[in-house]
Amino acid sequence: MVYKERTRTMPTKRKLMTPQDVQGAWAIMPTSAKEGAESWRMTDSLDLDASVDAINGLIDSGIDGILTMGTYGEAATLTLDEKKRFMACLVETVAGRVPCFVGTTTLNTRDTIELTRYAADLGADGTMLGLPMWCTPTLPAAVRFYKDVAEACPDMAQCIYANPEAFRFDFPPPFWAQVADIPQVVSAKYTAIGQLIQNLELTRGKVRAMPIELDYYAGARIDDDISAFWSSGAVCGPKPTIALRDEVARARETGDWTKAKALTDKMWWAVTPMFPAGGFREFSMYNIAIDKARMQAAGWMQVGPARPPYDMMPDHIRAGAETAGVRWAEMAKEAV
Amino acid sequence: MVYKERTRTMPTKRKLMTPQDVQGAWAIMPTSAKEGAESWRMTDSLDLDASVDAINGLIDSGIDGILTMGTYGEAATLTLDEKKRFMACLVETVAGRVPCFVGTTTLNTRDTIELTRYAADLGADGTMLGLPMWCTPTLPAAVRFYKDVAEACPDMAQCIYANPEAFRFDFPPPFWAQVADIPQVVSAKYTAIGQLIQNLELTRGKVRAMPIELDYYAGARIDDDISAFWSSGAVCGPKPTIALRDEVARARETGDWTKAKALTDKMWWAVTPMFPAGGFREFSMYNIAIDKARMQAAGWMQVGPARPPYDMMPDHIRAGAETAGVRWAEMAKEAV
Amino acid sequence: MVYKERTRTMPTKRKLMTPQDVQGAWAIMPTSAKEGAESWRMTDSLDLDASVDAINGLIDSGIDGILTMGTYGEAATLTLDEKKRFMACLVETVAGRVPCFVGTTTLNTRDTIELTRYAADLGADGTMLGLPMWCTPTLPAAVRFYKDVAEACPDMAQCIYANPEAFRFDFPPPFWAQVADIPQVVSAKYTAIGQLIQNLELTRGKVRAMPIELDYYAGARIDDDISAFWSSGAVCGPKPTIALRDEVARARETGDWTKAKALTDKMWWAVTPMFPAGGFREFSMYNIAIDKARMQAAGWMQVGPARPPYDMMPDHIRAGAETAGVRWAEMAKEAV
Amino acid sequence: MVYKERTRTMPTKRKLMTPQDVQGAWAIMPTSAKEGAESWRMTDSLDLDASVDAINGLIDSGIDGILTMGTYGEAATLTLDEKKRFMACLVETVAGRVPCFVGTTTLNTRDTIELTRYAADLGADGTMLGLPMWCTPTLPAAVRFYKDVAEACPDMAQCIYANPEAFRFDFPPPFWAQVADIPQVVSAKYTAIGQLIQNLELTRGKVRAMPIELDYYAGARIDDDISAFWSSGAVCGPKPTIALRDEVARARETGDWTKAKALTDKMWWAVTPMFPAGGFREFSMYNIAIDKARMQAAGWMQVGPARPPYDMMPDHIRAGAETAGVRWAEMAKEAV
Repeated sequence: MVYKERTRTMPTKRKLMTPQDVQGAWAIMPTSAKEGAESWRMTDSLDLDASVDAINGLIDSGIDGILTMGTYGEAATLTLDEKKRFMACLVETVAGRVPCFVGTTTLNTRDTIELTRYAADLGADGTMLGLPMWCTPTLPAAVRFYKDVAEACPDMAQCIYANPEAFRFDFPPPFWAQVADIPQVVSAKYTAIGQLIQNLELTRGKVRAMPIELDYYAGARIDDDISAFWSSGAVCGPKPTIALRDEVARARETGDWTKAKALTDKMWWAVTPMFPAGGFREFSMYNIAIDKARMQAAGWMQVGPARPPYDMMPDHIRAGAETAGVRWAEMAKEAV
Repeated sequence: MVYKERTRTMPTKRKLMTPQDVQGAWAIMPTSAKEGAESWRMTDSLDLDASVDAINGLIDSGIDGILTMGTYGEAATLTLDEKKRFMACLVETVAGRVPCFVGTTTLNTRDTIELTRYAADLGADGTMLGLPMWCTPTLPAAVRFYKDVAEACPDMAQCIYANPEAFRFDFPPPFWAQVADIPQVVSAKYTAIGQLIQNLELTRGKVRAMPIELDYYAGARIDDDISAFWSSGAVCGPKPTIALRDEVARARETGDWTKAKALTDKMWWAVTPMFPAGGFREFSMYNIAIDKARMQAAGWMQVGPARPPYDMMPDHIRAGAETAGVRWAEMAKEAV
Repeated sequence: MVYKERTRTMPTKRKLMTPQDVQGAWAIMPTSAKEGAESWRMTDSLDLDASVDAINGLIDSGIDGILTMGTYGEAATLTLDEKKRFMACLVETVAGRVPCFVGTTTLNTRDTIELTRYAADLGADGTMLGLPMWCTPTLPAAVRFYKDVAEACPDMAQCIYANPEAFRFDFPPPFWAQVADIPQVVSAKYTAIGQLIQNLELTRGKVRAMPIELDYYAGARIDDDISAFWSSGAVCGPKPTIALRDEVARARETGDWTKAKALTDKMWWAVTPMFPAGGFREFSMYNIAIDKARMQAAGWMQVGPARPPYDMMPDHIRAGAETAGVRWAEMAKEAV
Repeated sequence: MVYKERTRTMPTKRKLMTPQDVQGAWAIMPTSAKEGAESWRMTDSLDLDASVDAINGLIDSGIDGILTMGTYGEAATLTLDEKKRFMACLVETVAGRVPCFVGTTTLNTRDTIELTRYAADLGADGTMLGLPMWCTPTLPAAVRFYKDVAEACPDMAQCIYANPEAFRFDFPPPFWAQVADIPQVVSAKYTAIGQLIQNLELTRGKVRAMPIELDYYAGARIDDDISAFWSSGAVCGPKPTIALRDEVARARETGDWTKAKALTDKMWWAVTPMFPAGGFREFSMYNIAIDKARMQAAGWMQVGPARPPYDMMPDHIRAGAETAGVRWAEMAKEAV
């Protein structure tokens, strides 16, 4: 679909989301890049047409919410102008059909507040928010960061982007005990389910803890409060993601979790080739390039190259990423 | 009970355990230390009488297996002579009533093999085995280490001690794919359930993945193969540990997991005070001292001080550890 | 002095600096903040009057060059607008009297290029440039980053900001072997003199290696090519910094290094209280707040508070920082 | 030379060394391994004949002291029996001609004390001592460790083995301020000259700070107290090492440092190929294997393979190590 950018009027503000509003399958959206976007010479790298198609495709497939502009959504490598235009395109295309959270992590509190306010004005429901990462954050500084943004942007919900590797911070239990009382903090995107479990009681009813889709079956079985998850696979083909959500819901009714588990096992089979032998440390050196190569290989949406400086990876790592994409696409066909 | 050390004859060798033999609640045993054992001047720091009482207490309470001489069991700080004498005491006291695995992690392959053979000769069932940690291990070196020990000690089962912090190694999926084919590798003691889940299919039927008791409810719900766990709480009072095992077993029959979950929530409440604000990094600077202080405060067994050089911790961290111990003891009373 | 911002015309472009042009004492300038700048509510935190006074003070004292907007210069926490206005004020105030390099490190290649071009248009001589730090950089990505910026901004010199802690990159010898051939790379700001020494032959004649003032005596003695250094002490009072430069120059003539050494020893005495007991890891959690507290306590210039989120530190760490500032001021008096 | 092990009588105890006794070039000795020592099957891996030849060769060449059983000397991978027998062979062969320090780093305080006492009884002059590394050491624990060993072994000098990577400890200034007052702590083996410089005033007159030979020229120029260094190159051919010592001594008389500097530059040229592109982190994964391959390729002594589990490295890293060895040998020929 051809997307035409336009001047727009201020939307009527929706009211602040609650943890109870965060449910189901939330897709992580990359920001599609034009061919050649791996070069510094490309000043406008956004492929908004591809983005619009993907957004509509996700919503049509039944996705419950959208998170974007984290690591894979390239918050680090989009220019400020691209961020603003992508946000606008996203909010306008979504048009209130599902909640959407845009990443507003920057190098400091004030830039984050400014960008978060911009997103709020566009009508975004929330921010997926990590920590400034030039210096190693301390516990008090991390807590205050989220408090400051909440104070400055009271009508924007916050999904805490709890990625210890990117943000050099362990997000320990005392952190959760403190941020749980910020009304704007409605959800948390975890990378490790162990940490999610550890914090569950500290945040119950106050913060919706979201595991990755690979851990959703696990989370759902252990606690009824785990009723939402994030999916980086959705943009490789949303059917398995939606199927998982629905199978878990069905299992919660029937008590028969066989299919939810089998689907999860299949997902693990699909993603395993994208993890290098060097473990999470090696993965984190190439994660954007890996995930975009995987998504591109899956063929469901047009994602284009990673933006500089994160577009390079060794051939054997690219091959693993592509295999993971192809496997997901194969699984998506079966899930029809 | 007063334990009398004696010369002993070679036991009849039992056959190699299998993953299927690893079931239920496995207690992590500290090696009780005499008063004053925080000083380098104490050459014989073992309080074997207290150990015997604890071993018998654990078995009488219904524990399914014993793991010892990992981090809390002070593999790092026992002398070689103490290790050998403690192993002997343990194996003799257990007397085949439950399987027991002793830690034989050292700074290199050959010392580990020698100590593992010694343990095998005593009649231990297996070794809980981490990696030499002077240098950062690589994937091929880590795999070969476990292979070498298996080749050298074919009748000793191995429980892989997957502690990334202590051993400077991520234990990534390709590691598990390779060690799963070593027949001696029958189980894995995980610190992070996220990693356990990630590797589940790679090791199914070949390696029993053991989460900590705090994650056992979670693990059990998500996969029937998760049928064993490790407990550092058992020596703070084994009743909650045993109750958890039994509640999970009951839930597997009835489908009603309410009590297993409630017990798990209670356990999290009990342990939370022992984690410092600085997160896992800070915890790992004091972990032995923290856990021994917690166990001592719980009052179920006599553990004594941590051995040098790991016996010091700030007062506020000690206070948290002791609160955790007291809470567990309180919970153990209710669990009667 | 009261500084009045104004619209300005494009300066005549000076030609690209060479490593040979980088000589003597280069001051690291903080970006003075108004009272209250530790709050997110302050949108215009720049105290340009104080900056102008400091810039003139440094130049009047005889400083050879200015580096700014690194870690202490708060590249991370200034807004884009503040960065641009501070750069303009700096370049205009310096007015070609000494070379000045402004930091243009951002989260990605393209933002860095845009900001570097902006600085070039203002008339800045170069950029003090670190690496994007959301992801861990790889060797090829790091090299390409500097190449891309050089290609895009051919008339801007680059001072490589080799801070392994901030940028998650070791800056190993193969990196230097490759960037040495980029003509724009004229200097390198090292934090560790050991690494500087290791790379000296790889970059001789191509990149001026700059140690911190504390290591300048050492560097100067070992190699004549080490003829420039960076000083974070200059803004605590420039006299010791200038005296060191001159003593080293004198010693190079006379062969008598006694005074240069004594001055260096005095500097170590002055700065030691600002390093926390936890070593460099702990220092790096509070470095901006520490250095601004130190500078403020020294009383030579008005620096104001650190900007959010990096303005908090424990009291005992603040006390150490302030002692270091007071000691420097004391030393500066003696150096008259 | 064929070495015959024998029962030996207790030597007359020499008096405790002082920092003033630590002078000149100290060779780092590997512990020669027999062919096949990379296998766990080899129980006696010591090639004492080769060790004796190397010891005599070093002393004949004019070396001032010997340090052994650190990382390259394989303290981690020798068995206890091998350590004791190697120590005996070393002390007996040296026969008081030069001071010798043996590594007694273990996993805990008491094992270290026992081994240090054993070494003292043999007649070793001191221990090159790192920290137990199973857990991350804290500042108080690290200081107490060295104090405990000093108290237990009052007649053994200590060379603090300040390797942050191996021992997970930054060795920050407050550490040095405290250990400087332990009379047994007479020297420190630094890996980073920047840290050495930072601590120089804190330890002046109390601890002889030793840089690596590559940094000795630098150290010697900046401070007369830097009058000793350690050399891992000596066993690739001691001539350049001795020449460096002598050139520095000469330069201290004449003021002409040209030759000392040229020799240092040549040494950097020789060693550079052994550092992998991944920087110090990658080097530290293979350091033992790298250094033994380099020494073997140099051909001056028979070192044999690295012991398990540290004997594996990628081919391109081995190639770099061997090139470094060959370059040193070439340089040693010229230095005749």
